[in-house]
Amino acid sequence: MSAETFTITRREGLGRLGRLRTRHGTVQTPALLPVLNPSDPVLAPGEIRREFGEALVMTNAYLLKKKFGGGRKVHEMLDYEGPVATDSGGYQILRYGGIEADPEEIVRYQEEIGSDLAVILDVPTGARATREQAEETVRVTVERARRALEVRRDRDILWCAPVQGGKHLDLLAECARAVGSLEYQAHAVGSPVELLEGYEYADLVDLVMTAKQHLPPDRPLHLFGAGHPSVLPLAVLMGCDTFDSASYILYARDGRYLTRERTLRLEELSFLPCECPVCSSLTPEDLRKKPEAERVKALARHNLHVLFGEVRRIRQALADGRLWEYAELRCRSHPRLLEGFRRFLDYADFVERFDPVTKPSAFSYLGLESFRRPEVLRHERRMEEYEPPPLPELLLLPCFEREEVKRGKEVHLVRILPPFGAVPEELEDLYPLGQVVAPRRLEKEEVERMCLSLSRYLERHGKKYRRIVLLHDGRWGDSLREVCLRSGLGVEVLESGSPHPLKYSKPWDKRGRKNKG
Amino acid sequence: MSAETFTITRREGLGRLGRLRTRHGTVQTPALLPVLNPSDPVLAPGEIRREFGEALVMTNAYLLKKKFGGGRKVHEMLDYEGPVATDSGGYQILRYGGIEADPEEIVRYQEEIGSDLAVILDVPTGARATREQAEETVRVTVERARRALEVRRDRDILWCAPVQGGKHLDLLAECARAVGSLEYQAHAVGSPVELLEGYEYADLVDLVMTAKQHLPPDRPLHLFGAGHPSVLPLAVLMGCDTFDSASYILYARDGRYLTRERTLRLEELSFLPCECPVCSSLTPEDLRKKPEAERVKALARHNLHVLFGEVRRIRQALADGRLWEYAELRCRSHPRLLEGFRRFLDYADFVERFDPVTKPSAFSYLGLESFRRPEVLRHERRMEEYEPPPLPELLLLPCFEREEVKRGKEVHLVRILPPFGAVPEELEDLYPLGQVVAPRRLEKEEVERMCLSLSRYLERHGKKYRRIVLLHDGRWGDSLREVCLRSGLGVEVLESGSPHPLKYSKPWDKRGRKNKG
Repeated sequence: MSAETFTITRREGLGRLGRLRTRHGTVQTPALLPVLNPSDPVLAPGEIRREFGEALVMTNAYLLKKKFGGGRKVHEMLDYEGPVATDSGGYQILRYGGIEADPEEIVRYQEEIGSDLAVILDVPTGARATREQAEETVRVTVERARRALEVRRDRDILWCAPVQGGKHLDLLAECARAVGSLEYQAHAVGSPVELLEGYEYADLVDLVMTAKQHLPPDRPLHLFGAGHPSVLPLAVLMGCDTFDSASYILYARDGRYLTRERTLRLEELSFLPCECPVCSSLTPEDLRKKPEAERVKALARHNLHVLFGEVRRIRQALADGRLWEYAELRCRSHPRLLEGFRRFLDYADFVERFDPVTKPSAFSYLGLESFRRPEVLRHERRMEEYEPPPLPELLLLPCFEREEVKRGKEVHLVRILPPFGAVPEELEDLYPLGQVVAPRRLEKEEVERMCLSLSRYLERHGKKYRRIVLLHDGRWGDSLREVCLRSGLGVEVLESGSPHPLKYSKPWDKRGRKNKG
Repeated sequence: MSAETFTITRREGLGRLGRLRTRHGTVQTPALLPVLNPSDPVLAPGEIRREFGEALVMTNAYLLKKKFGGGRKVHEMLDYEGPVATDSGGYQILRYGGIEADPEEIVRYQEEIGSDLAVILDVPTGARATREQAEETVRVTVERARRALEVRRDRDILWCAPVQGGKHLDLLAECARAVGSLEYQAHAVGSPVELLEGYEYADLVDLVMTAKQHLPPDRPLHLFGAGHPSVLPLAVLMGCDTFDSASYILYARDGRYLTRERTLRLEELSFLPCECPVCSSLTPEDLRKKPEAERVKALARHNLHVLFGEVRRIRQALADGRLWEYAELRCRSHPRLLEGFRRFLDYADFVERFDPVTKPSAFSYLGLESFRRPEVLRHERRMEEYEPPPLPELLLLPCFEREEVKRGKEVHLVRILPPFGAVPEELEDLYPLGQVVAPRRLEKEEVERMCLSLSRYLERHGKKYRRIVLLHDGRWGDSLREVCLRSGLGVEVLESGSPHPLKYSKPWDKRGRKNKG
């Protein structure tokens, strides 16, 4: 893979904004590839480009061969001058069995028709494979990946080698290392479809994260079959760059209507909960009354609008440095996605290495999961080696946002800042400690975590100070005060609104006073 | 107010789907009222109706009078045959001071021009009023509300009396009771604008919830100035039915672009994160390059699409019985909204009385806040008076979803089901206990809450059983086992995968095994 083929322009988590260069144009990533059925196009690729402004489309080499045979270019067959990816048909073998296809022939055919991005014919492991079956699929996939490079003539095609192994994660890792060591321009995560269909997002996370940990990090990664808007933010945060969707049309044929959060049946719709051109000009009744072909087309257009819209939201979130928060928010559209997000957080140590240490936006606390963000991990690590400056007095200030405190020079200020806990003032220039936004009302468990952090700070460093004062405004009940009293360090507690006998004072604002408890 | 004026067709939380009948057509609620400036219409009401398919528009009686004088109908002045609401100008008095207007004259003028929905000239309290000032605004507002009814001639206008008092909640309650006792067809929550602008959503919740607790529950409630999609789901859940937005145009003039979650500046946009007709046909560069008038119009159209789209999503969520979850999800778009949602949960006891006891959809656990949902409150209350059936054996089954367990007739099954805790099987027919969806991976604090519930059950009822068995699959670590051991009841722990020496067995599925810890 050459640097010119895939250029990464911004990163967050494992996600990235990028540009993928093909013979028929450069593609902005993350990208959604609408899948076209050459035998039965509901939306022609030209229509897709006109309506959606962009499209790397995907079609199936096996089906093309069956319908058109050889001798023509895929761009001619589809009547489309934009970039075209072809899948080899491996998934069809898994799904429908026994498609006769020779892996080398499929490589040559994709070269012959001039695909811009082509996938070798792998052997999908599937979700229910035994270990022996999985071993065999990995062995054959790797062997074919090696052989394809020998057969290959056209070096301008971006060749993609899928990673197989399924739920057998050690085999998946082995496969990723093997195909990753070969000269491919892209990879794909194989066998996610059953997991996606069964809402097994936690297992999907294991699949993708295992592949990511063992593939060359800077090659684009495709996730097969992730054709629902709800899963895309997490998939991008995990480092997937491209997705194919046949869902927009399969769902349309089945009378199913995508929303960002779920899938509704056309007959369930009392309103059209979307602002796309289809939904802002029609009522559900209008849609239901259309003749079938028109209805399917309108639903397909809507479904594709939602998918492309979601991809643009993800791109803008990446540009804003808010992808993490966006994924955290979006994963609450279903408890199983939340479960998947929590599984993703188990990989936080790995992810942290790639996540930029500074971002162009504030840090927003959105729930318990925010405690496991890379920024919080980094702060915890930093605090393990932290030594306070040699100042005689410690002032503890529970707060959510920056608040000014007047005080003498000999006073060391440590804020208690959710979800970070104890934050010494001299660290506040480090992103994101100076720009944290959190709800001022905390749930019991969140207060407990703040207490734990304070208690650790006092244990480690309390004895280094001659005097310790807690500026207490009752915002989180009495818990912080109790931690101070239990510390045995003789912490003085200065109540909000009391006269200020000390040489520092906090300008108690209306918010502080208003938000007790 | 007559039953025919406002018909409620579905409820959830305090939210409702409704139909508001006006002389110029029936309006589906929740509804967003685009505000038109008669002097400078960027989008004419006819254009709005053509592009968005619906519109109860709002304009300002004071500005109309200034521009057009008397003698003409508002529908003629605006060239619009749909329903028109007029605001009296009270907010302009607060904002810009000293508009000379006589309250009775404003009532008569709104009758003269034939408004469909009209607001009396109240005296906004504002967010910074002292108690004395607030008392005065309430006194005058109530007095004017009384007087307006005497002046009123036209009984086909829907008259709206705002509730004032601001942050002085006892005064707000008094005002709500006073205007609520009068013969008005609608009410409005006054003075929220500064709170909305300052992200003071917790205070906004106090304002709205205080008004709701003291107004007649079945009159439509308008929330002034809530022109951002992010706040609408919570506002509807609190029982607001209509909203006015001047924001779509004010933001457009200022180069600001609404998203569901936030507001971006046009120059910050690398992508257009939206699927509306404007955004799916243009790039940010296209938009920036437009001449100013066209750009403002395009931005205004986009902003209005997002607002109307959000309103349709809220309506569909109400139709699906998912409004609560939708609001819970959407309130994570900003930590201050999450704070507002948490404040709303403080009113759960009041809300619970209105929330339907059964809904057409499953219950989804989305985070700690879900523990405070009406369904959970109801279950907790029920369990306080609960008596188990006289069966000799208790089988405890930690689980997230319905799982079949084979067992003898003498065994009582109690599931540990987040966020409900201990759920005896005979209650599972009660909504939503048989249809709860939660992440199988729990955070530490969530496991602790389950342990607490189990421990309470064992304390209360453990001694009534001869034998107690915990079917333990290690999914939540060892916490549940420890609770059982600590109970001193001799609970037997049956591990997943162990031979089944007892007469019941759980079909340990791949999910159970896979999702340990």
